[in-house]
Amino acid sequence: MPKLRAFNIGMSLDGFVAGVDQSLEEPLGVGGEELHTWMFDDPKGVDADFVARRTQGVGATVMGRNMFGPIRGEWPDDRWKGWWGDDPPYHHPVFVLTHHARDPVEMQGGTTWNFVTDGIESALAQAYEAADGRDVALGGGASTLRQFLEAGLLDDLHVAVAPVVLGGGERLFTGPLPAGYGVIEHVPSDAVTHVRIGKVSASASS
Amino acid sequence: MPKLRAFNIGMSLDGFVAGVDQSLEEPLGVGGEELHTWMFDDPKGVDADFVARRTQGVGATVMGRNMFGPIRGEWPDDRWKGWWGDDPPYHHPVFVLTHHARDPVEMQGGTTWNFVTDGIESALAQAYEAADGRDVALGGGASTLRQFLEAGLLDDLHVAVAPVVLGGGERLFTGPLPAGYGVIEHVPSDAVTHVRIGKVSASASS
Repeated sequence: MPKLRAFNIGMSLDGFVAGVDQSLEEPLGVGGEELHTWMFDDPKGVDADFVARRTQGVGATVMGRNMFGPIRGEWPDDRWKGWWGDDPPYHHPVFVLTHHARDPVEMQGGTTWNFVTDGIESALAQAYEAADGRDVALGGGASTLRQFLEAGLLDDLHVAVAPVVLGGGERLFTGPLPAGYGVIEHVPSDAVTHVRIGKVSASASS
Repeated sequence: MPKLRAFNIGMSLDGFVAGVDQSLEEPLGVGGEELHTWMFDDPKGVDADFVARRTQGVGATVMGRNMFGPIRGEWPDDRWKGWWGDDPPYHHPVFVLTHHARDPVEMQGGTTWNFVTDGIESALAQAYEAADGRDVALGGGASTLRQFLEAGLLDDLHVAVAPVVLGGGERLFTGPLPAGYGVIEHVPSDAVTHVRIGKVSASASS
Protein backbone atom coordinates (compact mmCIF):
# COMPACT_ATOMS: atom_id res chain seq x y z
CA MET A 1 0.00 0.00 0.00
CA PRO A 2 1.39 3.44 -0.87
CA LYS A 3 2.74 5.43 2.03
CA LEU A 4 3.23 9.04 3.04
CA ARG A 5 6.90 9.61 3.78
CA ALA A 6 8.95 12.60 4.88
CA PHE A 7 12.59 12.44 3.82
CA ASN A 8 15.82 14.09 4.90
CA ILE A 9 14.39 16.43 7.53
CA GLY A 10 17.51 18.04 8.96
CA MET A 11 17.33 18.71 12.69
CA SER A 12 19.79 20.31 15.11
CA LEU A 13 20.91 18.75 18.39
CA ASP A 14 18.54 21.05 20.20
CA GLY A 15 15.57 19.98 18.07
CA PHE A 16 15.22 22.76 15.49
CA VAL A 17 14.47 22.09 11.80
CA ALA A 18 14.90 25.76 10.88
CA GLY A 19 16.73 28.65 12.50
CA VAL A 20 15.33 32.00 13.55
CA ASP A 21 14.55 34.82 11.07
CA GLN A 22 13.49 32.85 8.00
CA SER A 23 13.65 35.09 4.93
CA LEU A 24 13.96 35.15 1.16
CA GLU A 25 17.74 35.09 1.53
CA GLU A 26 17.74 32.41 4.24
CA PRO A 27 14.69 30.21 3.71
CA LEU A 28 15.77 27.94 6.56
CA GLY A 29 16.62 30.79 8.90
CA VAL A 30 19.92 31.65 10.55
CA GLY A 31 22.09 28.55 10.63
CA GLY A 32 19.42 26.42 8.98
CA GLU A 33 21.58 25.58 5.97
CA GLU A 34 24.02 23.77 8.29
CA LEU A 35 21.31 21.17 8.86
CA HIS A 36 21.60 20.04 5.25
CA THR A 37 25.30 20.24 4.41
CA TRP A 38 25.46 16.44 4.81
CA MET A 39 23.16 16.14 1.76
CA PHE A 40 25.07 18.52 -0.47
CA ASP A 41 28.69 17.73 0.49
CA ASP A 42 29.04 14.72 -1.82
CA PRO A 43 27.17 12.26 0.44
CA LYS A 44 28.44 8.68 0.57
CA GLY A 45 27.30 5.36 2.01
CA VAL A 46 24.24 5.52 4.18
CA ASP A 47 23.93 9.27 3.62
CA ALA A 48 23.79 8.77 -0.14
CA ASP A 49 21.25 5.98 0.30
CA PHE A 50 18.95 8.23 2.27
CA VAL A 51 19.26 11.06 -0.24
CA ALA A 52 18.40 8.66 -3.07
CA ARG A 53 15.26 7.41 -1.32
CA ARG A 54 13.64 10.78 -1.83
CA THR A 55 12.93 9.98 -5.47
CA GLN A 56 12.65 6.18 -5.41
CA GLY A 57 9.05 5.06 -5.92
CA VAL A 58 7.67 8.50 -5.15
CA GLY A 59 4.95 9.81 -7.48
CA ALA A 60 3.75 13.03 -5.85
CA THR A 61 4.66 15.52 -3.10
CA VAL A 62 2.65 17.47 -0.53
CA MET A 63 4.26 20.54 1.05
CA GLY A 64 3.33 23.47 3.24
CA ARG A 65 3.11 26.92 1.80
CA ASN A 66 6.14 28.17 3.72
CA MET A 67 8.26 25.55 2.02
CA PHE A 68 6.94 26.70 -1.36
CA GLY A 69 7.80 30.33 -0.83
CA PRO A 70 8.10 33.34 1.46
CA ILE A 71 4.78 34.98 0.46
CA ARG A 72 2.11 35.05 3.19
CA GLY A 73 -1.59 35.88 2.76
CA GLU A 74 -3.18 36.43 -0.69
CA TRP A 75 -1.03 35.76 -3.74
CA PRO A 76 -0.25 39.25 -5.11
CA ASP A 77 0.23 37.82 -8.63
CA ASP A 78 1.34 34.62 -10.35
CA ARG A 79 5.03 35.41 -10.45
CA TRP A 80 6.28 33.31 -7.51
CA LYS A 81 6.91 29.79 -8.80
CA GLY A 82 8.96 28.29 -5.96
CA TRP A 83 12.58 28.48 -4.85
CA TRP A 84 13.84 26.00 -7.42
CA GLY A 85 13.95 27.78 -10.82
CA ASP A 86 12.23 26.70 -14.05
CA ASP A 87 12.95 22.98 -13.61
CA PRO A 88 12.29 22.04 -9.97
CA PRO A 89 13.79 18.76 -8.71
CA TYR A 90 10.39 17.09 -8.16
CA HIS A 91 9.40 15.97 -11.67
CA HIS A 92 5.89 15.05 -10.52
CA PRO A 93 2.74 16.76 -9.24
CA VAL A 94 3.25 18.78 -6.06
CA PHE A 95 0.34 19.80 -3.84
CA VAL A 96 0.91 23.01 -1.89
CA LEU A 97 -1.24 23.60 1.21
CA THR A 98 -2.60 27.17 1.27
CA HIS A 99 -5.61 29.15 2.38
CA HIS A 100 -5.56 31.13 -0.87
CA ALA A 101 -6.68 29.61 -4.17
CA ARG A 102 -4.46 29.81 -7.23
CA ASP A 103 -4.41 28.10 -10.63
CA PRO A 104 -1.99 25.21 -11.15
CA VAL A 105 1.40 26.06 -12.61
CA GLU A 106 3.17 23.67 -14.94
CA MET A 107 6.95 23.82 -14.73
CA GLN A 108 9.64 22.23 -16.86
CA GLY A 109 10.64 18.62 -16.22
CA GLY A 110 7.24 17.34 -15.09
CA THR A 111 6.74 19.32 -11.90
CA THR A 112 3.27 20.85 -11.48
CA TRP A 113 2.36 23.17 -8.60
CA ASN A 114 -1.20 22.49 -7.45
CA PHE A 115 -2.68 24.68 -4.72
CA VAL A 116 -5.00 22.98 -2.24
CA THR A 117 -7.25 25.09 -0.03
CA ASP A 118 -9.47 22.45 1.60
CA GLY A 119 -7.13 20.82 4.08
CA ILE A 120 -4.51 18.15 4.57
CA GLU A 121 -6.77 15.12 3.94
CA SER A 122 -7.82 16.57 0.59
CA ALA A 123 -4.23 17.34 -0.40
CA LEU A 124 -3.17 13.85 0.55
CA ALA A 125 -6.05 12.19 -1.34
CA GLN A 126 -5.20 14.18 -4.48
CA ALA A 127 -1.51 13.30 -4.09
CA TYR A 128 -2.18 9.57 -3.67
CA GLU A 129 -4.36 9.67 -6.79
CA ALA A 130 -1.69 11.51 -8.77
CA ALA A 131 1.02 9.12 -7.50
CA ASP A 132 -0.97 6.23 -8.98
CA GLY A 133 0.22 3.50 -6.63
CA ARG A 134 3.57 5.02 -5.74
CA ASP A 135 4.40 6.69 -2.43
CA VAL A 136 3.79 10.34 -1.62
CA ALA A 137 6.57 12.52 -0.20
CA LEU A 138 5.76 15.04 2.51
CA GLY A 139 7.79 18.24 2.61
CA GLY A 140 8.01 20.78 5.42
CA GLY A 141 7.84 23.03 7.18
CA ALA A 142 7.65 21.80 10.73
CA SER A 143 3.98 22.65 11.22
CA THR A 144 3.00 20.72 8.10
CA LEU A 145 4.94 17.68 9.30
CA ARG A 146 3.32 17.91 12.73
CA GLN A 147 -0.19 18.20 11.29
CA PHE A 148 0.15 15.00 9.27
CA LEU A 149 1.89 13.21 12.16
CA GLU A 150 -0.78 14.18 14.68
CA ALA A 151 -3.53 13.11 12.27
CA GLY A 152 -1.87 9.68 12.02
CA LEU A 153 -1.44 10.16 8.26
CA LEU A 154 2.37 10.18 8.16
CA ASP A 155 3.78 6.67 7.77
CA ASP A 156 7.50 7.39 7.82
CA LEU A 157 9.37 10.42 9.13
CA HIS A 158 13.09 10.43 8.38
CA VAL A 159 15.03 12.89 10.51
CA ALA A 160 18.76 13.52 10.11
CA VAL A 161 20.20 14.93 13.33
CA ALA A 162 23.17 17.18 12.57
CA PRO A 163 25.85 17.97 15.18
CA VAL A 164 24.87 21.63 15.37
CA VAL A 165 23.29 23.68 18.17
CA LEU A 166 21.02 26.34 16.62
CA GLY A 167 19.78 27.88 19.85
CA GLY A 168 16.45 28.94 18.41
CA GLY A 169 14.09 28.56 15.49
CA GLU A 170 11.32 26.17 14.56
CA ARG A 171 11.01 22.88 16.46
CA LEU A 172 9.89 19.66 14.83
CA PHE A 173 8.68 18.05 18.06
CA THR A 174 6.64 20.16 20.46
CA GLY A 175 5.30 17.29 22.55
CA PRO A 176 5.27 13.52 22.77
CA LEU A 177 4.88 11.43 19.63
CA PRO A 178 1.24 10.54 18.94
CA ALA A 179 0.18 7.16 20.34
CA GLY A 180 1.40 4.28 18.25
CA TYR A 181 4.43 6.08 16.81
CA GLY A 182 8.01 5.28 17.73
CA VAL A 183 11.56 5.12 16.44
CA ILE A 184 11.70 2.35 13.81
CA GLU A 185 15.27 2.84 12.55
CA HIS A 186 18.47 4.44 13.88
CA VAL A 187 21.44 4.59 11.51
CA PRO A 188 24.39 6.81 12.29
CA SER A 189 26.84 8.11 9.70
CA ASP A 190 29.96 10.17 10.17
CA ALA A 191 27.98 13.29 9.29
CA VAL A 192 24.56 12.88 10.91
CA THR A 193 22.35 10.41 12.73
CA HIS A 194 19.50 9.09 10.66
CA VAL A 195 16.35 8.29 12.62
CA ARG A 196 13.09 7.05 11.16
CA ILE A 197 9.86 7.46 13.09
CA GLY A 198 6.86 5.39 12.10
CA LYS A 199 3.94 3.37 13.35
CA VAL A 200 4.94 0.73 15.85
CA SER A 201 1.45 -0.42 16.84
CA ALA A 202 -2.03 -0.67 15.40
CA SER A 203 -3.30 2.20 17.56
CA ALA A 204 -1.65 4.68 15.20
CA SER A 205 -3.61 3.55 12.15
CA SER A 206 -6.09 6.14 11.02
CA MET B 1 46.19 21.85 32.45
CA PRO B 2 43.33 20.10 34.26
CA LYS B 3 39.91 20.46 32.68
CA LEU B 4 36.29 20.46 33.73
CA ARG B 5 34.47 17.78 31.79
CA ALA B 6 30.88 16.55 31.67
CA PHE B 7 30.53 12.93 30.58
CA ASN B 8 27.76 10.74 29.20
CA ILE B 9 24.96 13.28 29.34
CA GLY B 10 22.07 11.41 27.73
CA MET B 11 19.79 13.57 25.60
CA SER B 12 16.64 12.76 23.64
CA LEU B 13 16.10 13.66 19.99
CA ASP B 14 13.96 16.57 21.10
CA GLY B 15 16.66 17.92 23.40
CA PHE B 16 15.65 16.70 26.86
CA VAL B 17 18.15 15.34 29.41
CA ALA B 18 15.39 14.37 31.85
CA GLY B 19 11.71 13.63 31.42
CA VAL B 20 8.78 15.25 33.18
CA ASP B 21 7.79 14.45 36.79
CA GLN B 22 11.18 13.71 38.36
CA SER B 23 10.69 11.84 41.61
CA LEU B 24 12.34 9.51 44.11
CA GLU B 25 11.17 6.55 42.03
CA GLU B 26 12.15 8.11 38.69
CA PRO B 27 15.08 10.47 39.32
CA LEU B 28 15.36 11.20 35.60
CA GLY B 29 11.64 11.66 35.13
CA VAL B 30 9.26 9.77 32.88
CA GLY B 31 11.22 8.09 30.10
CA GLY B 32 14.50 9.50 31.37
CA GLU B 33 16.05 6.09 31.97
CA GLU B 34 15.82 5.39 28.22
CA LEU B 35 18.47 8.05 27.70
CA HIS B 36 21.04 5.88 29.46
CA THR B 37 20.26 2.31 28.39
CA TRP B 38 23.22 2.55 25.96
CA MET B 39 25.53 2.81 29.01
CA PHE B 40 24.09 -0.10 30.94
CA ASP B 41 23.31 -2.57 28.15
CA ASP B 42 26.83 -4.02 27.92
CA PRO B 43 28.34 -1.13 25.92
CA LYS B 44 30.93 -1.97 23.29
CA GLY B 45 33.34 -0.14 21.02
CA VAL B 46 33.02 3.62 21.05
CA ASP B 47 30.21 3.43 23.63
CA ALA B 48 32.45 1.52 26.03
CA ASP B 49 35.27 4.00 25.39
CA PHE B 50 33.07 6.92 26.35
CA VAL B 51 31.80 5.18 29.49
CA ALA B 52 35.39 4.45 30.56
CA ARG B 53 36.45 8.07 30.14
CA ARG B 54 34.30 9.03 33.11
CA THR B 55 36.89 7.68 35.52
CA GLN B 56 40.13 8.09 33.56
CA GLY B 57 42.28 10.85 35.01
CA VAL B 58 39.40 12.30 37.01
CA GLY B 59 40.12 13.28 40.60
CA ALA B 60 36.98 15.04 41.80
CA THR B 61 33.36 15.69 40.82
CA VAL B 62 31.05 18.69 41.05
CA MET B 63 27.29 18.11 40.86
CA GLY B 64 24.05 19.97 41.38
CA ARG B 65 21.90 19.24 44.37
CA ASN B 66 19.13 17.70 42.26
CA MET B 67 21.56 15.10 41.03
CA PHE B 68 22.55 14.33 44.61
CA GLY B 69 19.02 13.78 45.80
CA PRO B 70 15.33 14.65 45.71
CA ILE B 71 15.32 16.84 48.86
CA ARG B 72 14.68 20.57 48.28
CA GLY B 73 15.21 23.41 50.77
CA GLU B 74 16.78 22.83 54.22
CA TRP B 75 18.23 19.39 54.96
CA PRO B 76 15.73 17.86 57.43
CA ASP B 77 18.47 15.60 58.88
CA ASP B 78 21.66 13.85 57.81
CA ARG B 79 20.06 10.67 56.55
CA TRP B 80 20.09 11.30 52.78
CA LYS B 81 23.47 10.19 51.45
CA GLY B 82 22.83 10.07 47.71
CA TRP B 83 21.16 7.63 45.34
CA TRP B 84 24.12 5.27 45.19
CA GLY B 85 24.21 3.27 48.43
CA ASP B 86 27.10 2.99 50.89
CA ASP B 87 29.83 2.75 48.24
CA PRO B 88 29.07 5.33 45.53
CA PRO B 89 30.84 4.86 42.17
CA TYR B 90 32.87 8.08 42.47
CA HIS B 91 35.75 7.02 44.78
CA HIS B 92 36.92 10.63 45.14
CA PRO B 93 35.74 13.92 46.67
CA VAL B 94 32.40 15.15 45.31
CA PHE B 95 31.29 18.77 45.71
CA VAL B 96 27.52 19.23 45.82
CA LEU B 97 26.15 22.68 45.02
CA THR B 98 23.50 23.72 47.53
CA HIS B 99 22.13 26.79 49.29
CA HIS B 100 21.99 24.91 52.60
CA ALA B 101 25.13 24.11 54.60
CA ARG B 102 25.79 20.58 55.77
CA ASP B 103 28.80 18.73 57.17
CA PRO B 104 30.83 16.55 54.84
CA VAL B 105 29.90 12.87 54.70
CA GLU B 106 32.52 10.19 54.20
CA MET B 107 31.28 7.15 52.31
CA GLN B 108 32.90 3.78 51.65
CA GLY B 109 35.35 3.43 48.78
CA GLY B 110 36.81 6.93 48.91
CA THR B 111 33.77 9.03 48.01
CA THR B 112 33.22 12.09 50.21
CA TRP B 113 30.17 14.35 49.88
CA ASN B 114 31.15 17.99 50.41
CA PHE B 115 28.43 20.63 50.40
CA VAL B 116 29.31 23.99 48.86
CA THR B 117 27.11 26.99 49.53
CA ASP B 118 29.16 29.83 48.04
CA GLY B 119 28.71 29.28 44.32
CA ILE B 120 30.02 27.45 41.28
CA GLU B 121 33.45 29.13 41.15
CA SER B 122 34.13 28.12 44.75
CA ALA B 123 32.96 24.56 44.16
CA LEU B 124 35.15 24.31 41.09
CA ALA B 125 38.21 25.74 42.86
CA GLN B 126 37.80 23.25 45.72
CA ALA B 127 37.34 20.41 43.22
CA TYR B 128 40.47 21.34 41.25
CA GLU B 129 42.44 21.45 44.47
CA ALA B 130 41.12 18.07 45.58
CA ALA B 131 41.80 16.58 42.13
CA ASP B 132 45.46 17.56 42.53
CA GLY B 133 46.30 17.93 38.85
CA ARG B 134 43.72 15.55 37.47
CA ASP B 135 40.52 16.59 35.68
CA VAL B 136 37.24 17.42 37.39
CA ALA B 137 34.00 15.78 36.28
CA LEU B 138 30.83 17.85 36.15
CA GLY B 139 27.54 16.09 36.84
CA GLY B 140 24.03 17.36 36.16
CA GLY B 141 21.34 18.35 36.26
CA ALA B 142 20.75 20.50 33.22
CA SER B 143 20.81 23.81 35.08
CA THR B 144 24.16 23.00 36.66
CA LEU B 145 25.62 22.13 33.26
CA ARG B 146 24.26 25.35 31.76
CA GLN B 147 25.64 27.50 34.59
CA PHE B 148 29.19 26.23 34.09
CA LEU B 149 28.86 26.40 30.30
CA GLU B 150 27.57 29.97 30.34
CA ALA B 151 30.36 31.00 32.73
CA GLY B 152 32.91 29.60 30.27
CA LEU B 153 34.15 27.16 32.94
CA LEU B 154 33.15 23.93 31.20
CA ASP B 155 35.89 22.66 28.88
CA ASP B 156 34.26 19.56 27.48
CA LEU B 157 30.58 18.59 27.33
CA HIS B 158 29.94 15.07 26.10
CA VAL B 159 26.33 14.51 25.04
CA ALA B 160 24.98 11.14 23.90
CA VAL B 161 21.89 11.64 21.74
CA ALA B 162 19.55 8.66 22.09
CA PRO B 163 16.93 7.80 19.45
CA VAL B 164 14.04 8.60 21.77
CA VAL B 165 11.43 11.37 21.69
CA LEU B 166 10.55 12.34 25.29
CA GLY B 167 8.07 15.09 24.45
CA GLY B 168 8.76 17.06 27.62
CA GLY B 169 11.10 17.47 30.57
CA GLU B 170 14.28 19.36 31.20
CA ARG B 171 16.22 20.76 28.25
CA LEU B 172 20.01 20.93 28.16
CA PHE B 173 20.18 23.75 25.62
CA THR B 174 17.81 26.70 26.05
CA GLY B 175 19.60 29.08 23.69
CA PRO B 176 22.66 29.34 21.49
CA LEU B 177 26.00 28.04 22.73
CA PRO B 178 28.07 30.74 24.45
CA ALA B 179 30.52 32.53 22.15
CA GLY B 180 33.59 30.46 21.44
CA TYR B 181 31.95 27.07 22.00
CA GLY B 182 31.21 24.60 19.22
CA VAL B 183 31.00 20.93 18.35
CA ILE B 184 34.51 19.47 18.60
CA GLU B 185 33.73 15.79 18.06
CA HIS B 186 30.90 13.78 16.49
CA VAL B 187 31.09 9.99 16.80
CA PRO B 188 28.06 7.86 16.06
CA SER B 189 27.54 4.35 17.40
CA ASP B 190 24.73 1.92 16.71
CA ALA B 191 23.07 2.98 19.96
CA VAL B 192 23.56 6.74 20.24
CA THR B 193 25.38 9.68 18.69
CA HIS B 194 28.24 10.99 20.76
CA VAL B 195 28.83 14.72 20.45
CA ARG B 196 31.44 16.70 22.33
CA ILE B 197 31.07 20.44 22.75
CA GLY B 198 34.08 22.50 23.71
CA LYS B 199 35.98 25.68 23.15
CA VAL B 200 36.75 26.31 19.50
CA SER B 201 38.20 29.81 19.85
CA ALA B 202 40.02 31.95 22.35
CA SER B 203 36.94 34.06 23.04
CA ALA B 204 35.55 31.30 25.22
CA SER B 205 38.48 31.25 27.60
CA SER B 206 37.59 32.48 31.01
